[in-house]
Amino acid sequence: MKFGLLARMTAEFLGTALLVAAVVGSGIMAERLSGGNLALTLLANAVATGAILVALILTFGSISGAHFNPAVTVADAMERGIAWREVPAYVCAQISGGLAGTVTAHLMFGVPLLSLSQRVRGGSSQMFSEFIATFGLLAVIWGCSRLQAPMIPFAVGAYITAAYWFTSSTSFANPAVTIARSVTNTFSGIQPADVPGFVAAQMAGAIAATLLFRWLSPSLQETAEEVLMPHSPAPPGVKL
Amino acid sequence: MKFGLLARMTAEFLGTALLVAAVVGSGIMAERLSGGNLALTLLANAVATGAILVALILTFGSISGAHFNPAVTVADAMERGIAWREVPAYVCAQISGGLAGTVTAHLMFGVPLLSLSQRVRGGSSQMFSEFIATFGLLAVIWGCSRLQAPMIPFAVGAYITAAYWFTSSTSFANPAVTIARSVTNTFSGIQPADVPGFVAAQMAGAIAATLLFRWLSPSLQETAEEVLMPHSPAPPGVKL
Amino acid sequence: MKFGLLARMTAEFLGTALLVAAVVGSGIMAERLSGGNLALTLLANAVATGAILVALILTFGSISGAHFNPAVTVADAMERGIAWREVPAYVCAQISGGLAGTVTAHLMFGVPLLSLSQRVRGGSSQMFSEFIATFGLLAVIWGCSRLQAPMIPFAVGAYITAAYWFTSSTSFANPAVTIARSVTNTFSGIQPADVPGFVAAQMAGAIAATLLFRWLSPSLQETAEEVLMPHSPAPPGVKL
Amino acid sequence: MKFGLLARMTAEFLGTALLVAAVVGSGIMAERLSGGNLALTLLANAVATGAILVALILTFGSISGAHFNPAVTVADAMERGIAWREVPAYVCAQISGGLAGTVTAHLMFGVPLLSLSQRVRGGSSQMFSEFIATFGLLAVIWGCSRLQAPMIPFAVGAYITAAYWFTSSTSFANPAVTIARSVTNTFSGIQPADVPGFVAAQMAGAIAATLLFRWLSPSLQETAEEVLMPHSPAPPGVKL
Repeated sequence: MKFGLLARMTAEFLGTALLVAAVVGSGIMAERLSGGNLALTLLANAVATGAILVALILTFGSISGAHFNPAVTVADAMERGIAWREVPAYVCAQISGGLAGTVTAHLMFGVPLLSLSQRVRGGSSQMFSEFIATFGLLAVIWGCSRLQAPMIPFAVGAYITAAYWFTSSTSFANPAVTIARSVTNTFSGIQPADVPGFVAAQMAGAIAATLLFRWLSPSLQETAEEVLMPHSPAPPGVKL
Repeated sequence: MKFGLLARMTAEFLGTALLVAAVVGSGIMAERLSGGNLALTLLANAVATGAILVALILTFGSISGAHFNPAVTVADAMERGIAWREVPAYVCAQISGGLAGTVTAHLMFGVPLLSLSQRVRGGSSQMFSEFIATFGLLAVIWGCSRLQAPMIPFAVGAYITAAYWFTSSTSFANPAVTIARSVTNTFSGIQPADVPGFVAAQMAGAIAATLLFRWLSPSLQETAEEVLMPHSPAPPGVKL
Repeated sequence: MKFGLLARMTAEFLGTALLVAAVVGSGIMAERLSGGNLALTLLANAVATGAILVALILTFGSISGAHFNPAVTVADAMERGIAWREVPAYVCAQISGGLAGTVTAHLMFGVPLLSLSQRVRGGSSQMFSEFIATFGLLAVIWGCSRLQAPMIPFAVGAYITAAYWFTSSTSFANPAVTIARSVTNTFSGIQPADVPGFVAAQMAGAIAATLLFRWLSPSLQETAEEVLMPHSPAPPGVKL
Repeated sequence: MKFGLLARMTAEFLGTALLVAAVVGSGIMAERLSGGNLALTLLANAVATGAILVALILTFGSISGAHFNPAVTVADAMERGIAWREVPAYVCAQISGGLAGTVTAHLMFGVPLLSLSQRVRGGSSQMFSEFIATFGLLAVIWGCSRLQAPMIPFAVGAYITAAYWFTSSTSFANPAVTIARSVTNTFSGIQPADVPGFVAAQMAGAIAATLLFRWLSPSLQETAEEVLMPHSPAPPGVKL
């Protein structure tokens, strides 16, 4: 028996909100303190993002699986780990959570609640980067899901810390986070016009990795229900 | 059977003292070495704080639960994880430990034992930051307590490392640590006048997260006794 | 029963490709952002490399063992952990994966697909560094293989993060990665003329550590099959 | 049945050598690359030292316990975890290993094999720092030994990373390492005249923490044999 859908949506909402608050907030803080040194800014941003992922996946994994990411949810549905009819609820929670996270970060730093980003992130190199970043993210998730599921929080946190540095796009790798970052005109922003390309590349990367691992590790469906983290059964008496 | 109250108070005192010594001491060291680069100063401060939390929760968790934080102790009492009558003893140990930590750091760096901070940290943005920071901390603790308790040292360390960067207040998130940081006129200080607002925001955040998780994860009380870490039973023969 | 050779070669190819993409890509990003501060560049490079190793060993360890490194594969064959007749397949997958990783990084950053490095890394100090770096890497692997195998992803990631800093060569410690880094004229490159010396020193270090641990820990052969990570049995029904 | 003394001494020698090589080597590298930015130099030095400790304790813990530190060995003997008659062998292995580590670092960076440090590290603040640093280190070890022994590599690595920053002496916390650092005239050095004071403060801190935990956690002796890591029984057939 799983947690009820409302509890799982709450977990996805809260988790994505805190994730985006960390991405956007640490970007603002780092930009303010680093005196224009972009390497130091990105280092702070990457460390904060990787660390919050470890904490949040451990926190919400046992309730909703801790996807926080429509690309992960769709990939999981491809393997029947989550029912397709529940995907829209997860994605809504993730997108609204992401937007709430941007607003929260802006409130914490005393800047206008929403501001369209003017940061250009287009071009084929950046889109290829998003493809690779999300391909790698799903490879990590599927590769770990068979025998290393308890280590996934650390694997994902470490992967994203690295991916901030090794892709030219700094690895958004998440459609909900990408949308949320389009309404912040700060370090981590992306101009709205570049969002569709990023999302398309991310979905393509996620699907490619899922198909590859379906061949590579044929027991994928047996563990898909437990992605990212084992989140069933709920404790006795839970009827949410 | 638990460790006796005196042993647990000693653990809370020592743990909070070492935590504050790390926060204050690394702030002094980083300020001295960074030549005015605030991003580098905060990076060192955040890495040191996150790392010492991992070490200290592992060290003292099995004795006292490793709260080191009145907001955690009160939240745990709300869920009957600790008896209300023991809360004052825990809080006293935490506050006195925190002050001892500041003095220790000052001794190590050869500055006056106590000095009132002149650093202004007021304003609604910073208070909202403390609300969010402590809300997130308790969310991490309650979220992990059901199935991920052994990973809490890493979840909390990672969370605070991130929160130093993604909140405008740099995430004190702890009333005892806040008080202890009011008597150091160095990088990590906070002027005494701003302490009450910080503490109020922290307590509000802790209570909000606890109420939310009481609804989200109804088995909370079953695991509250083990917060942060399983700390019973004591080994045979312990009668402290 | 193990995964089939094709699946294992795919895992070695993908893992080495992502590893090299991370090494080369983070070097390019760090060089672009750091404004000439080499310490910051190497710090970003080291953090990214250590983190991606944690993620990739967790991801591919249960399929192929996650060697990603001809020196590891040969050392493992010395202890009969992998059949000598499979070594060429592993090494081919690793070298071609490494080259694919360099190309991937170049595509992500919009630079020419291949470019011979002009970075000189010769001299006896650097070769001695590679000997020590690879000696240490195999010491970590053999030392952990008896009782700490589940922790190997973290041990190897931590070791390489440190080794980037404590060796004058920045610890290539991997012949496939060394070859792949000879065709990138960026921060992490090595001029082709220096490759043979590096590879020779790496193989010598790996063999020396293996012989030492054969004496120090006589049960080595019992665990060699599980290096780096337990990768058998495959799930039921796998006939790749 | 334990590993034989020769095997354990070899493990202590190798581990201490690699530890000191990492401390000294990363100091040299960081000093060369950081262009005089001391915060960046210490950050690299701290990250490298913490990371290598994680790797080395995992590697050698199951053979010798991975003390690498006379203060730890003596404290362990106080609790009958190691026989007093074996202490001199451990300490000799640690001191000679440390010196070999300095020489190795110097060889890797092409500087003279030995050079007396001229770096002054005296004064009561620094000695108090070493007392606190080693007190904290033993507190972490004893606190974790009862229930968290498998996590000790991470606890110790995290503790030392933090302690580099929060003590004015940068936490040598190890007599063998202190001696080894007196013969390198580079970033991590200490002038020989300051060694005795450091060693005395370290031993006092180690003994104080051991006595405190003897009271706090009375079952200390039951786990002392397993410090730092469980290192018995040896595998069948070992007769070294």
